[in-house]
Parts: sequence; C-alpha cells; structure tokens
Amino acid sequence: MFDFFEAHPWKIVENELRPDHKRFSESIFSLGNEHMGLRGFFEEDYSGDTFQGSYIAGVYYPDPTKVGWWKNGYPEFFAKVINSTNWVGMHVCIDGERLDPAHGQVTDYRAELDMKQGLLSRSYVWTSPCGKKVAVSFQRFLSMADVELGAVRCEIKALSGPLSIVVTPYLDGDVRNLDSNYGEKFWDAAGHGAKEDALYLKSISKKTHFEVATAMSCRFLHRNDEHDLLPQSCSQPHRAEAAYAVGLAENETMALEKFVAVLTSRDHEAGDLIDLACRKVLQAKELGFNPLFSNHVAVWDQKWAEADVIIEGDVKAQQGIRYNIFQLQQTYAGRDSRLNIGPKGFTGEKYGGCTYWDTEAFCFPFYLYTNKEVARNLLVYRYNHLERAKENARKLQLKGALYPMVTIDGRECHNEWEITFEEIHRNGAIAYAIYHYTEYTGDTEYLDSMGIEVLIELSRFWASRVSYSEPKQKFVILGVTGPNEYENNVNNNYYTNMLAQWTLSYTLQELDRLERTKKDLFKDLQDRTQLTRQEELQWLNIQQKMYLPRDEERRIYLQQDGYLDKEQKLVADLQPGDYPLHKNWSWDHILRSPYIKQADTIQAFYFFPKLVDRAELRRSFDFYEPRTVHESSLSPSVYSIVASLAGYEEKAYELYLRTARLDLDNYNHDTEDGCHITSMVGSWLAIVQGFAGLRFEGNQLAFDPYLPQQWSGYSFKINYQNRPLSITVTSGEFVLKQLSGDPMIVRVGSKTFPLSPSQAVLAPTRRAEA
Amino acid sequence: MFDFFEAHPWKIVENELRPDHKRFSESIFSLGNEHMGLRGFFEEDYSGDTFQGSYIAGVYYPDPTKVGWWKNGYPEFFAKVINSTNWVGMHVCIDGERLDPAHGQVTDYRAELDMKQGLLSRSYVWTSPCGKKVAVSFQRFLSMADVELGAVRCEIKALSGPLSIVVTPYLDGDVRNLDSNYGEKFWDAAGHGAKEDALYLKSISKKTHFEVATAMSCRFLHRNDEHDLLPQSCSQPHRAEAAYAVGLAENETMALEKFVAVLTSRDHEAGDLIDLACRKVLQAKELGFNPLFSNHVAVWDQKWAEADVIIEGDVKAQQGIRYNIFQLQQTYAGRDSRLNIGPKGFTGEKYGGCTYWDTEAFCFPFYLYTNKEVARNLLVYRYNHLERAKENARKLQLKGALYPMVTIDGRECHNEWEITFEEIHRNGAIAYAIYHYTEYTGDTEYLDSMGIEVLIELSRFWASRVSYSEPKQKFVILGVTGPNEYENNVNNNYYTNMLAQWTLSYTLQELDRLERTKKDLFKDLQDRTQLTRQEELQWLNIQQKMYLPRDEERRIYLQQDGYLDKEQKLVADLQPGDYPLHKNWSWDHILRSPYIKQADTIQAFYFFPKLVDRAELRRSFDFYEPRTVHESSLSPSVYSIVASLAGYEEKAYELYLRTARLDLDNYNHDTEDGCHITSMVGSWLAIVQGFAGLRFEGNQLAFDPYLPQQWSGYSFKINYQNRPLSITVTSGEFVLKQLSGDPMIVRVGSKTFPLSPSQAVLAPTRRAEA
Repeated sequence: MFDFFEAHPWKIVENELRPDHKRFSESIFSLGNEHMGLRGFFEEDYSGDTFQGSYIAGVYYPDPTKVGWWKNGYPEFFAKVINSTNWVGMHVCIDGERLDPAHGQVTDYRAELDMKQGLLSRSYVWTSPCGKKVAVSFQRFLSMADVELGAVRCEIKALSGPLSIVVTPYLDGDVRNLDSNYGEKFWDAAGHGAKEDALYLKSISKKTHFEVATAMSCRFLHRNDEHDLLPQSCSQPHRAEAAYAVGLAENETMALEKFVAVLTSRDHEAGDLIDLACRKVLQAKELGFNPLFSNHVAVWDQKWAEADVIIEGDVKAQQGIRYNIFQLQQTYAGRDSRLNIGPKGFTGEKYGGCTYWDTEAFCFPFYLYTNKEVARNLLVYRYNHLERAKENARKLQLKGALYPMVTIDGRECHNEWEITFEEIHRNGAIAYAIYHYTEYTGDTEYLDSMGIEVLIELSRFWASRVSYSEPKQKFVILGVTGPNEYENNVNNNYYTNMLAQWTLSYTLQELDRLERTKKDLFKDLQDRTQLTRQEELQWLNIQQKMYLPRDEERRIYLQQDGYLDKEQKLVADLQPGDYPLHKNWSWDHILRSPYIKQADTIQAFYFFPKLVDRAELRRSFDFYEPRTVHESSLSPSVYSIVASLAGYEEKAYELYLRTARLDLDNYNHDTEDGCHITSMVGSWLAIVQGFAGLRFEGNQLAFDPYLPQQWSGYSFKINYQNRPLSITVTSGEFVLKQLSGDPMIVRVGSKTFPLSPSQAVLAPTRRAEA
Repeated sequence: MFDFFEAHPWKIVENELRPDHKRFSESIFSLGNEHMGLRGFFEEDYSGDTFQGSYIAGVYYPDPTKVGWWKNGYPEFFAKVINSTNWVGMHVCIDGERLDPAHGQVTDYRAELDMKQGLLSRSYVWTSPCGKKVAVSFQRFLSMADVELGAVRCEIKALSGPLSIVVTPYLDGDVRNLDSNYGEKFWDAAGHGAKEDALYLKSISKKTHFEVATAMSCRFLHRNDEHDLLPQSCSQPHRAEAAYAVGLAENETMALEKFVAVLTSRDHEAGDLIDLACRKVLQAKELGFNPLFSNHVAVWDQKWAEADVIIEGDVKAQQGIRYNIFQLQQTYAGRDSRLNIGPKGFTGEKYGGCTYWDTEAFCFPFYLYTNKEVARNLLVYRYNHLERAKENARKLQLKGALYPMVTIDGRECHNEWEITFEEIHRNGAIAYAIYHYTEYTGDTEYLDSMGIEVLIELSRFWASRVSYSEPKQKFVILGVTGPNEYENNVNNNYYTNMLAQWTLSYTLQELDRLERTKKDLFKDLQDRTQLTRQEELQWLNIQQKMYLPRDEERRIYLQQDGYLDKEQKLVADLQPGDYPLHKNWSWDHILRSPYIKQADTIQAFYFFPKLVDRAELRRSFDFYEPRTVHESSLSPSVYSIVASLAGYEEKAYELYLRTARLDLDNYNHDTEDGCHITSMVGSWLAIVQGFAGLRFEGNQLAFDPYLPQQWSGYSFKINYQNRPLSITVTSGEFVLKQLSGDPMIVRVGSKTFPLSPSQAVLAPTRRAEA
C-alpha cells in the first residue's frame, strides 16, 4: 500500500517528485468544478510518463460499438468523454534550456492540494543540465464561483543569475484520448486568433459537434511592471500561444498569471462562443488572480459548512474523508441537471465519463442530506431521460422504461448482453432514490410533477419483465444479473425481485395518495400516461405474488435460485494469487464460484433495514460477508453500514477502512487511471448512515450512534427539511444541534427527543459491542 | 423460397443469369477438392454484384480479438480463412469491348454443375453494347486426383464476324477478405515471373507466413493450331497474366485451356514452391485437359460408388441429397489429418473456415459409414491437438483437456464467454466420436494408440469441472451453455451432464479392458499420463453421483435446472415477425423464453437411443419439439432421426425436408454468404439413421427401415467392417446386399438375419404409422 502523503487534516502533500507514480499523483491532484476538470499534470513541460487529461462535462464522442459477435439490441456507440484542450500549459525556457523536471535536478519538491480552498500548488528548485538554478512554483484553481473560468499562476525566482527567462503560456487543442482506437482524433479545429489581450482557440467535436471556445489572457509581473505580449501568436490550427521574455538577476522573481475561459455550445450560442470566451477571460484578468480566487474560496467555504465531516483522533481518517468530500463536490454540484456523476469524474477517461447506477445507489444520499437541491437535479436528470428509457425498453420488446446501464445522454452505451440487457436492477435504485428524496425532504413536489411518471413507467417495465412460474405459483424474474456481477443470467435475484416488488407497491401507494388528495393531477396523469385501473390491479397481483428465493434451513433470503448448489467456499479459502478474481480466473470459473463481487442481498438490507429483523440481518451478514470479495469499490461501505446496523461494530470499522482512503492509498492499484469518484461517497455513508446510524423513518429523523474505538470523536453536518443540523459523537455522548428552522422530534437509539435551535439533543451512544 | 434450379438427378442447372442472386448462385456452384476451393464466380469480367472467394485449406490469418469488455481467458485471435489468388480469371476482349455479362445482352444462359463428374460449365450468347455477338462457354474443375491442380476451358465462337479476340488469362493475388477490418490485406507479394511456358505468382500470408505459389500455363486452340504466348507478362507484384490474340471469322471458334497449380509451404519446402508449381502445371498442360479431367472423374466415380444415395420417385429430393454429398466430399476427403470441416467449406468466409463441434456431432457418421479411413483422420486431428486442448483447460484453471469451440490449429478462436468458456459439451461429442468409431469399425487400434489418451484428458476435465451440491447430494455442472445456445450460463444442462457421466464411464470401461488385455500398453499409458487408481475411483464416484435434471411429473429429463419456471409457450404461439428470434428479439428476451434453438436434450437421445424407453422418447419429443425453433441448420435432421426412432414417421419426413435442400432452396436466406456444409450431412443422416434406422449395437449392425410415403424407394451404400453394403428400401421391402467380405449377422426390426456376399437379406419394412 502507498503511504505517500503527509497526514494533514486539510491538505494532500507530496514531498517528492516520483516519476514512477506520476500518473497516480496526477489522478489525486485532479481539480474540477462540475463544468470542467483536469488531472494534476504539470503546467511546464514534462518528458517523463504522464497522462494529460482535461475534460468538459457533457462533451463526448460516440465511439462505435465493437464486439466480436453482435447481439440484437446492442447500442450503436459507447460515449467517450473527450480529452480536451490543455489550457494550463506553459513552456518555460531558462537561458535557452527548457524547464523539464524529468531532466536536470529537482530538489525541495512539494505538491500540495489545499482542499479547504480548492487550490493546487507545486514548487521546487530546479538545476538545469547546464547548471542554471531556479525556484519555480505553480498555483492553479478552477473557479467554483464562475465555472467557466480557471487560473494558473507561475512564479520563477533566479537562484543563479543573471538568467534570461521566456515563459510561453499556451492552449493546446491537439490532444487525443488515451483510449482512442487507432489513435483517432475526436476534435476538428474551428478557428484561432486574438481579441484584444485574449488568444482563443475553437474546436468542434467530431460526430457530436460540440463547439468549445477556449480563451486565455495573461498578466506578466516583474518588478511590479506588466510586460507586453510578444507578437507571437501561433499559426497552428490547434494551438494558441504567447511568449513573455524577461531577464532576471540572481534572487529576482517574475510571475505570470494565466486566466482561461472554457465555454461550450452546450451553454451558449455557438456563434457567440469566441466573443463570450474572450470577454469573460478579459474580465477575469481585469478582476485579478486574488479576487477571482477569493470568490472561488467563498463557494468552498459554503460547501464545507454544509457537508464537512470532522474526525477527532485520526488525522489520516480526517484527511481521507475530506478528500472524498472534496472530489464529490468538484465532480457534481447540481447546477446543471443535464450532468451527472461519472465514476472517474474529471480524473480519468475510464468508463467514458458516463452515468452508472452508482449515482442513485450510492452517491445520492450524500447530496440529499447536505443539499437537497443538488439531489433534486439528479432526479430531474432521470426524468429528462424518461422518453429514451422508454425507447430502450421497447428495444428489448418490453413495456415502460428501462434506464440505461451506462449513459451520457439517456441512450444505452454498454455492450455486454449480461449487463446491458440483464442488469435491470438499475431501475430499482432510481425508484428508491425518488422515494428516499421524498421521504427525507418531506416534499412531494418532485414526485407529483415528475417522479410519479417515472414510477409508472418503471412499474410497467417490471410488469412486462416478470413471468409466471407454474411450479412456483409465483411471479419470477428470469435471466438477470444482480449487483453481484460475478453471476450472470441468473433466475430470481433476490435484490432485483425485492426491488421490483417494492417499486410496484410504492407506485400504487403514491398513485392512491394522488387519487385521494390531488384529483386533478391524478386525472391529468391518467390521461397523459394512459394508466388504467386494470393495470394497477395487475401490478397489485404481481406485487402480492412475487417470488423471493429463501433458504428455510438457514432462515435467510438467497441471492438467487440455486445459489446453494455451488461449492460453499469462503473468501478465507482463497490464495493471495487469486486476487483480484477477474484478473486471475476465467469468467466461467468466477461465475460458478460462490464468490460475490459486491453487496447484493446485503444491498437490499442497506436500502430497507426493516426488511428482516435484526437476528436475520445478522444471519444474512454472517452468510454473505465471508463470501464477498469486494472487487467493486462500492461494496465495503455498504457492508460497513449493514455491519453497523447489525451491531458488528468492529467489522463495520474494518470495512470502513477499505473505502476511507481508497485512492489516497491506491488500495486497488489502479488510481493512475483516475479516482473512484462514485465510491468516495462510501466513507461518508459509512460514517453518517453507519456509525451515526442516521435513518429517516416516516417523517422522523433517527440516529443510532456509536463511536469507533479508534477515534476520539467525529462530527458532521446535514440539512433536514430546511434545518441545518450539526451532529457530534464522542465517547459515550451524542450531541445534535439545530442551527435554524422549526422545532422537530428526533429519535436517538430507542428514545425520542425534542429538537430546536434553542434545544440540542444530548444522548448516550450505543455501547460498543464486545 | 427459391425454386431456381431444374429438377435433375445429377445436375444443378440455372437457366438464367440473375444479377440479384449472383452471390447465391456463386455459393451453390462452389467447387473444392479438400486442398482448395472457390466460389462459382465468373472467369470473365463481371461488373455486377459478386463475391469472389478462393480459399486454400489450412491457410489462415490470425485476426486480433476485438471485444468491448475483455474477459480473462479470451483468445488472442480469431482465425480467418484467407481469400487467396483468383486463379480462374480471364479477361476477354471482343473487337475492343470487354466481355462483361453485366453489360450488353445475355441470352441462352446456362450454368450447370455436374455432380457426377465435379464439373462446372457455363455458356451463353453475348451481344456486346456495340452489337458484336459471340457464344461463350467455360468449364472448370478442381482435380480430385491431384488436388493441387485446377483447370479452366474457355470457348468463344464468333456469331457475328469477323471479330478480333484477345483472351488474357491471369492470376490475381491482390485480393481481400469480404470480412477484413478497415480493408486490411492479408497477403504480401513475394515474387512473380515466368518459367518456360508457366507464369507464377508467390504470396506470403501476413503474420502466419504461409507461402503460396500459384502457377498457370495455357493452351490456345484455333483451327487446330496452338498459338504462342504474347510477351506480355505482367509487372505488378500481385499479378501474372498473358494475352492471346486471334481473329475469328463468323461461326469460327477458339478455345483456351488454362492449367493452374496451387502449392503451399504447408506441403512443400518454401524455397521449392515456385519450381514445383511451374513443373506441375507444365506437366498438367502436357497431359492435356481431357486426360486430366478423366483422372478427376475416376475419383468421383469411386466416391459415388462408396457413398451415393438414390431416391426413387422424387427427383428434387434426389438432387438435394446428391448435392449435399457432393459438397461434403469436396470439403473433406480425409487425405490430410491437419484439416477439418469448416461450416462453410470453400463456399464462403463466415465462421473463418474453422472447426466446430459440427464435425464430431454431425458430420462424423457420414465419413465413418462410407470410408472409415476418412473418419479416422478426423480423430487423429483431435489427437494432434490434445496438448493445446490441455493448455486451453489450464487457461480456465481446469485439469485435463478442453477442446476449443472453434479452432484452426488447436487453439481457441471464439470470444464470447458464454460459448468459449461454457459450451463445454463439445468435449462430449469428441468422446462420442471415438466410441462411435471404435464400435462401428470393431477396430481398437485408434482407441488404444491415441483415443484413450484423449479420453483420459476429457475425463480429467469433467472431474475438475463438476462440483458437489450439498442440497442435491450429487455432482453438478454449473454455468454451462448446452447445444441450445438460446440459453446461456445454465446449471445442469442434461445433455452436458449426461455426456460427462458417460465419458467417465466409457473411459473407465476402456481402461479396464486395456488393463486386462494389454498390460504393457496400459502400464505405458499410466506412466505417460500419470494416471492413478485414486483418479479412476474419483471418476467412478462422480459418474455414480452425477445429477441429471428430471421432471417427475412429466416423466422426462429436463433440459436444465429451472427450465419449467419459464412461461411454457410453444413455437405455435410465435408470430411470423418473430422469426428468426436472434434477429428480432433482444438476447435477454431469447434467454428467458422457453424457445430452444436446436436439439439439446433430444441430441442426447440421438447419440444414445437407449437412454430412455420408447414411451419416454415420445414424451420427450412431444415436449421439446413444439418448443424448438430450429434456428440452427443442424437441428431438424437430429429431430428427424429421433422422430423416426419414436415412430413419428410423418414428422420425421417433415423435418427431413427442412435440411434436404437447405442451400439449393436458400431456406435460411443466407446461402449468399456460403453453403451450410456441415449441415448438409443432416439429410444423409436423416435417411440412413432415420428412415433406414441404421444402428450399431455392440458388434451387430441393425436396421429399422421404413419408406417415407412420398417416395417410391431409396437406396444407399455403406461400408461396415470392410464389407461394402448396399441397402435398398422400397414399399414394404428392405433389401440388404453385401458386395464382398466375411459373412455376418444383422438385425432388421426385431429379427436377425445372416448376411454374406452370396446371401442377401430381404425383410419387411416397419409399417408406416397412421
């Protein structure tokens, strides 16, 4: 395991330039602001191994599906997030030598990500191959206040002298994806030039025709003077650059501030892009680096006020949870309901920047509990894709809506039949998120105006996807893949069947409420969706007769039909060389083994803790956990929460550790490809829903808190129905404060308490189990 | 359905040039001789739609595997049969106009495939766009006597005149595969030139480095003179050509005979290829067209004497069965045990010219019953691939040998996990073929020297692939795909489990025989294979406790666990627009449906008719047949045979019809891609094993013959343990004649009869059922 970074509550600090792990560091130091983002690659030239990725949310390329054997229903393309113009770059020339930390000598290296302020800084002393010596530093941020803006500041101090310095900031649109086929390019150049002090570059994505204008304008500081731009604007269609030259005496310093605006035709008229980008970047330059940065920090202050988690007595845990929250906030801020949360965010290209079920099944509560408007936009995203989800179901000869497994614009992008066509439980997590949002916020506005339509189409889907088994005299769901993707094409996955049953039940319940309380709306809905009483009765019938596989001997629900026919080996029986299974075992070997990739039946109990009593919850956990290899980074946190529910507190903490610093410690040895953004929420969930036991029960908030033995305390913020709450758990004591809003009743453990801004709750935590 | 061809017992005749169906005709008129083959494309230029394919057995290109999502264990390449030098081509120029039947006017068109002699002839009258008129004819054959030779004869008669004619026969190596990616080429040019009267071209296949020399030499006939070659040998690296010019008066005729030799480094030293090819082609020219043809016809005479089937009272059926036999004999003749039977033979590129389980499961009996040496070479092929099959099993973390699903050189070529890793029943058909060969020939030589090693490794595979189910207290085989590929990753496919059980049992039986009767050989085998008593006991245990899914209510074996949980719809419930399912339904829809692609449980009863009694055979047939869509061309014949066994004679004939003229009538609308060579055997099997009820039972040959009502009689030849037999079935009478060899006892129906060259068997047929 890596142990690269200093323990620090607010910063990620790297004290050494490690060429072997450059891509890893670049992933960790990624910045983003929902609109755009980029990996922590260097501004200056770097001739060593590097993965320069710069991405714009929602800008993708439809890469044609390639499979050996086509199956009817496969999607035509996979949406790839496109590597876009490198806008941080600047060449630095020192007495004719290119600054390149892969050559010469680098000392006093320090890279620092300040998570509180969203600032990436880097400094080092460089001795050139010819012996010239400079101290160099870079700072960059992507504005959270105006997301189309970013800025870089470069300082160079001559440690030997005098030195002639040429700094050439540039925009480079001649970039390719790491994962393009046959080195394909995804951009066409569409103009470049200058407007006043701004240089611009315009590119159009192939096939999708997204237009992107990138503009830069620079301020050069030396002896408190500003220097003029040298007349050296670049003639290449994919490149804009300007060179600044200065002579430095020994110990003298120069600085260059580069302001950049990135605007796309997703947000503006294509014809206006260049003008708007240049105007915006000139205004930013006019405002200045520090004021621009202050505006940015103000947004971060707000984010941390809403969603910070403090852990006492474990600085590495503190660093880990803040890093995760930081990356989640960078990736998705809920400003734009056309966007969603890609599994790698802006930190890499893998998974194409697309939306997975990760959003609803894992990430959703973090946004919901800290800022419901952000969560609402995630639901609007799915509502906006409802028509395409209906098309998708029709493509599989089914009714209603099947949301895609992977998407960027509502169309399915994945092309393995066992996933694309069979991992249909994804529909369930979307219904659950609607329910979760509505219950937690107490607000039926989304449900009544959009969610109910989604629910109707999801129910229609399930009603057309079940079939009736004569031997079982029950409705069954055949040929599915559950959350455990180490089983394919199984019959009656418990999680899937249970969610289908619950979706039908919840839809009927909410339709009943609407019919009783909002007759006009209900009537209108009936007309719009052609919903009939007969259809509702059919759903009721299916819901009542849904088959759920169960082992009566062990008194637990079974992951799927026939699971017990497998050799019941345990994870403890595996050898180190077996891990990870998907890299060491052939697929059939994995499929017929009992090993579970990630929470499956246990995921159901995470969603619905009351599905089974505590004794059965424990029996289930005791059965499934020793069979689970957690080869999805989404798995340990869910198991951790269920362990907390079951009172397995040590186990809960052990599982929490597997997600707490997944990327910082490069737990899965693949962070170089990018960070596991959607998994990052896991440690937050494990603390809030696990250790603190946060639950919503009807219209009541509930906690069942305890303190992991390894910590001396933790606290976090949530917002419950317009009441900002602060929760602190220390050894033996639970303190809940309400910062504003109406009084309420909360439950802690088995007792209820009144809570208001003037009346905090002080309650004992549950005793740590032996 | 097509009805293009005249009914004729020995010929396939097309009386019209149909540009819309050109590719279909080209498939039908394909010629081959095991060493090489080519589609029936035209010798002269043809600017309309055409698919010019010319192939050499065993010469392939390893096309890298392309999948969206890689699974551990996938093969690195798919072996593609390579389109090779077009050696029949000749340009014809008539008074400066190119002969091209796609232009001008074509009348009196006739294409004729003479199956008795293996000759393709074509003639027509062509009026050029400028009004010149000629009668043209072409004849071609690929020598069955010397398989490296082919010849084309072209005759041109001036119907208007005088005409200046230039004929330019050529070899064109600048060819591509229809299915190449990005127009890739698979050949490098490696020399061209002339030796004496021969022109040659040498090509080397990319990556695999097969070297191929093609040489041609021509005889030009006009007024009984031979004309000299014009000094016009071509300078392009991929091309050799020579031009012959002559003036024809009206009604005068010229002819050109083109002799071609195709030699490869598979059979000769690469350095000698050019010399050998030129020498061979010059000898062929010296011998002359007609003598060369006579040698070729003599081999066909022998083939027909061994394997002809005569059908009385149905010329189209006669034509169909002969066409099938003709193509089977062209594709594989057992001369070269490095070769096998590609599903399209030399008639197309689909399926890459590779070997599938079709060979053992379907084609094998045809060769075994007509010429056991040919069948033996098919078994030697698998023995020679045993080491690679062992590697393949190890790749899947299994013991013993797993033969590839698709192969050209022993390595797996298929890349769908549900097939490659799970359609493991293919191992069973190989064991069955060894058993079939040994029982039918009464000769244990192959078994003792090679087959037993194959059986040991197959048994080892099964022993490592089963697992023990605690709930069932039986050995189970989880995660397989049976012959019915419309189910994937099922548990306990009856066919697979049964064959695994039988293989273990048969292996143990033969090991016991060897131990008792050939102690030295057995000892040597033990040493060579590290076989232990303990291992044999383990096999015995598995064999005794193998689980076979069964429905006790219906009293039939079930295709797999959970089959009855499906909605029990029938083929009769499908709509015309549903066919074929794989083109109209998404894959998950197919998988969860009850529809069966091809004989699966029924295939088991085809192999082992005594597995169940006749009543259960009927119950099984009655259950499975109405659920089977026969979307594999291999399916109806197997069902037909089992229908014959069950006494469902009308059904047997109905199913027979679906294979009888599969390609001639373009039943599946895809013959343009090539003919269904391996399926062609189906009609032969349906007659011999179905209608005539040929069986081997221990050391006794048995028949249970009947005559389909639609026919007035049929007869066929087989060879049983060096006894050529002729079987004739007419209304009510069965006549079995032995042409030579030792006397024997045969069973017909329930009675036994002595048989010898001097004593034929005359017996009644079974009564046709109502």
